[in-house]
Amino acid sequence: MKRRDLSEEACPIARSLERVGEWWSLLIMRDAFHGLRRFDEFQKSLAIAPNILSRRLATLVENGLLEKRAYSQRPPRYEYHLTEAGQGLAPVLLSLLHWGNTYFAPEGASITLADRATGRVVTPVLYDLEQQKPISLESHQLVAGPAADENMGARIRRASEQQESANE
Amino acid sequence: MKRRDLSEEACPIARSLERVGEWWSLLIMRDAFHGLRRFDEFQKSLAIAPNILSRRLATLVENGLLEKRAYSQRPPRYEYHLTEAGQGLAPVLLSLLHWGNTYFAPEGASITLADRATGRVVTPVLYDLEQQKPISLESHQLVAGPAADENMGARIRRASEQQESANE
Repeated sequence: MKRRDLSEEACPIARSLERVGEWWSLLIMRDAFHGLRRFDEFQKSLAIAPNILSRRLATLVENGLLEKRAYSQRPPRYEYHLTEAGQGLAPVLLSLLHWGNTYFAPEGASITLADRATGRVVTPVLYDLEQQKPISLESHQLVAGPAADENMGARIRRASEQQESANE
Repeated sequence: MKRRDLSEEACPIARSLERVGEWWSLLIMRDAFHGLRRFDEFQKSLAIAPNILSRRLATLVENGLLEKRAYSQRPPRYEYHLTEAGQGLAPVLLSLLHWGNTYFAPEGASITLADRATGRVVTPVLYDLEQQKPISLESHQLVAGPAADENMGARIRRASEQQESANE
């Protein structure tokens, strides 16, 4: 079945999902954050068929999350580096890491995030720097942006009403 | 092709991906955050085939992200509500929203996050509340947790070395 193309959907979450391509591709991005660069390294880490890895890397390059850099001319060999947009995924991956540790690691965490200076393990929270307060769906809400169409407006109104009744 | 099961992987990101099931299922979760509860509402919002929606909702229930609550006995009808683990996905979705707005909305944002009290649009950053500083891969690093095995240890050492050379 041909999947519906989400890249032009108004919702930025849908667009983001389209850019990453598939769930699995997030594991490629995770590995890129872990310092992997070369095809063989990704393949060893992910244990997937070369043709599938090749297609997924190509999609991530095409969508601007990774960039190919030649490290050998003969034979031609490439490394895959995170682009700026690719690096922008860090909060998504770190939020997933925290979510996984919180709900799906009954035996304890196998990887956590720590402060480099102190070594202390940190709990990442989403934060509003300007007002200096944590972001939650109680204190914050989704609002229409300048490019919102009617559908998006209706969706946001519904979300807002729903949240208000949940907060009561 | 049978996909590899990631639910027992040491990496919490891989486990998380397995729990959500597929990229597309995140859009179901997004809709649940937007206040949708009923099968017909999800179907109208997502425009996918009933059998596929049905399978994905069942997976999300099975994995503990949504819970089914009867709202009618005859005929039996159910609503889908976010569980605690499902609500825990909020930072992931909000980070995706911000990422999409930053890199993939050249025409401007169609949806943003605002402070309920002031109406001001906020930029979500991942934050270390205890040390009161933003989390970045320059100031923070991944470290082995109590349940780390040898593979995870090696992966983390490599990531750490790679990041240190990037910081130089």
